[in-house]
Amino acid sequence: MPLPPNIQLAIEAFSRLPGIGSKTAERLAFHLLRKPEQEVRQIGQAIASVKQGVLQCRICSHLTQDELCHICIREDRDKELICVVEGPLDLLALEKAGQFKGVYHVLHGVISPIEGIGPDELTFAELIERIKAQPPREIIMALNPSVEGEATMAYLMRFLQPLGIKVTALARGIPMGGHLEYADQQTLRRALEGRMAY
Amino acid sequence: MPLPPNIQLAIEAFSRLPGIGSKTAERLAFHLLRKPEQEVRQIGQAIASVKQGVLQCRICSHLTQDELCHICIREDRDKELICVVEGPLDLLALEKAGQFKGVYHVLHGVISPIEGIGPDELTFAELIERIKAQPPREIIMALNPSVEGEATMAYLMRFLQPLGIKVTALARGIPMGGHLEYADQQTLRRALEGRMAY
Repeated sequence: MPLPPNIQLAIEAFSRLPGIGSKTAERLAFHLLRKPEQEVRQIGQAIASVKQGVLQCRICSHLTQDELCHICIREDRDKELICVVEGPLDLLALEKAGQFKGVYHVLHGVISPIEGIGPDELTFAELIERIKAQPPREIIMALNPSVEGEATMAYLMRFLQPLGIKVTALARGIPMGGHLEYADQQTLRRALEGRMAY
Repeated sequence: MPLPPNIQLAIEAFSRLPGIGSKTAERLAFHLLRKPEQEVRQIGQAIASVKQGVLQCRICSHLTQDELCHICIREDRDKELICVVEGPLDLLALEKAGQFKGVYHVLHGVISPIEGIGPDELTFAELIERIKAQPPREIIMALNPSVEGEATMAYLMRFLQPLGIKVTALARGIPMGGHLEYADQQTLRRALEGRMAY
């Protein structure tokens, strides 16, 4: 055994995380070896208990420690304006932007046949049920601009269109700080289509 | 609180690892949220116990679970040939190369005034004591070619030279698969100096 077993196990544990190869895993494990015992234990325990006490909001499926998330519980949020996002990080990004005053629905993924994710793995049923129970004024689709995102939107529209609710999608275009010369064709096409009066 | 506290704690824990920024830490934490409870706990516990049962070899300071490491304990290794390395990963790399049949001495770092690492933080005293007790035939310096590595070698030489032991250093030169056109001046200079009969 070239290294003590606990170091090997830690290297293997790090290797199981996405984007961390065996070299990085070694570097991380050896970094911890130089840290005080207490700090190492703290880090490991925090990672081990990441799922503990984590629930999904009964209304919007956002991650929460209570029955309702910190957004659905607020009375000053517009409950008739629902923004559909792929995951909790997208929700947090939109919240940081500080513009949106409605509520969310977190799908927890997008339809992806390659990864074996169909509508049943997502919170589609919850969204449809929620909309039928209390029809919103508008639904904003804020899925990521990917093939899977577009496919998921198309699939959702099949259910939403018959309900006669206004559905919008985030504007596609040149991001702030972006350069026209580096923008792909599709982004440029969308930016032209969506041009606005100046 | 935008996210349940345990997720926040896990994100903070990941952020404390080197080379992991806040975005990557979020991605790692959310990756684990989608994994089974048991797997997550296993990963965290493996990280938490990385230091447990890890000792330093009484002879060479390599990491081990016993009094002596898996190299010092072997009778077929040449105890009169000591290769000095910065850390255990360098030792493992040399072992993988499979060429070296001597023993090692692990310094656990290099002298680095910026990081507050002086000779006392390294296993210098152990090396000198070891050499005096049982003088080797040759000492091979296998430190990384950095400013700190060179400074550490120079410092060590001050103690080794008076002892009259042969000291060599790993050859500097063009690595396999490397390209002359991308090699830095110092590497090229060293490669020329160290040229060998073909």
